[in-house]
Amino acid sequence: MALIFYERVGHEGRRPSPYSWRIRYALAHKALDFEVRPVRFADVEAIRGLTGQHLTPVLSDAGRAVHETWDIACYLEDRFPSNASLFGGPIGRGMARHIIVWSDTQLASPLRRVIYADFPAVLDPGDRAYFRTTRERDLGLTLEAACADPTAKLAAFHQACAPLERTLSAQPYICGTAPAYADYAVFSIFQWARLGSPKEVVVQGSAIADWRSRMIAMFGNLGDMFPGYPTK
Amino acid sequence: MALIFYERVGHEGRRPSPYSWRIRYALAHKALDFEVRPVRFADVEAIRGLTGQHLTPVLSDAGRAVHETWDIACYLEDRFPSNASLFGGPIGRGMARHIIVWSDTQLASPLRRVIYADFPAVLDPGDRAYFRTTRERDLGLTLEAACADPTAKLAAFHQACAPLERTLSAQPYICGTAPAYADYAVFSIFQWARLGSPKEVVVQGSAIADWRSRMIAMFGNLGDMFPGYPTK
Repeated sequence: MALIFYERVGHEGRRPSPYSWRIRYALAHKALDFEVRPVRFADVEAIRGLTGQHLTPVLSDAGRAVHETWDIACYLEDRFPSNASLFGGPIGRGMARHIIVWSDTQLASPLRRVIYADFPAVLDPGDRAYFRTTRERDLGLTLEAACADPTAKLAAFHQACAPLERTLSAQPYICGTAPAYADYAVFSIFQWARLGSPKEVVVQGSAIADWRSRMIAMFGNLGDMFPGYPTK
Repeated sequence: MALIFYERVGHEGRRPSPYSWRIRYALAHKALDFEVRPVRFADVEAIRGLTGQHLTPVLSDAGRAVHETWDIACYLEDRFPSNASLFGGPIGRGMARHIIVWSDTQLASPLRRVIYADFPAVLDPGDRAYFRTTRERDLGLTLEAACADPTAKLAAFHQACAPLERTLSAQPYICGTAPAYADYAVFSIFQWARLGSPKEVVVQGSAIADWRSRMIAMFGNLGDMFPGYPTK
């Protein structure tokens, strides 16, 4: 029985969730087949019925539902140990977790202040009010106020990217000579911005820009498999 | 023939260099014997004669001298592949490099502003003027001015530690259930502060404080093998 992948779907089939992107890349890395069940924010009760919580993505494997993106990645690694490794062993698994904690906080937080005002347009129209209400409550600001002074916000994000730029100037991928899960997870933050805003958030000609291009092109151009930011 | 380890030595046998500490731990991890050649800043010409550059640590193996801390760690991993692994394979080696880039910039930079005014006291008296001149030139400030407003400087360091605190709240070591090179490298930043300043830079009761204690105690209390900050 195929794996079933429940992932957030946005406006006209867009895929706005960074957490879904890292699992999509992980599934491709392990060359696994899966069925997709697109989920809107409005479908929260279906997800709660499946897992007891409302967050996506969720992976269902022969009736067992796994949620929390990190737990899904670990599940795939342990369930399919003969397929290409996401972590390269227990030492790598530990380090991957730290790199993800770093990127989910130190990169995603300043990036939110760059892209959030643009983001509702990629969500299903029925999900936009929910997104705005919950995110504005978390921020204590309107999305537009959070994204005020875009030049300074983008500069803060570039500053946060400095360690990544340095690593990718020294080696082609975070995981060395070939990508693995830490690359997918960090890339998913850039993919979130790329599909969720018309703003270019990486510096042209940077090591990060080059790495991002290679990440998009992987697995038959997986990063471009769904529509980008609406042009009108 | 034994490995020869050239490392910076400070006042009365102290070991002030974070780079030396990570290699000491790496040597212990691989259970390797080595001879120590303590080096003062004033011994720069001897190191230059050995490697063509002036930085320590340097590892000499049967007449071959390796410098740059990262290159020494990789050399040990490749030269002694049957001993315990520092990286857990190529994927882990890639991630370790990124974690080290992160800690050497994002942790060490704010920490410098906490400890640098205290630091000359742990150096050999003959090295203090060199240290002060070169560091003040890099900073564009006196050491004392760089460390002004210590409460704000310590708060900035604690802020920078947030991803590490989160990782170590989820798992005992950066490398998972047991420490490896990324732990040694990040620990060396804390060890540098611990031996180079009388200030306590970690939050009591934090996951980082607990991890640091376990790191100090490893390999027969390796972290306490040399004198601490002078008490008078």
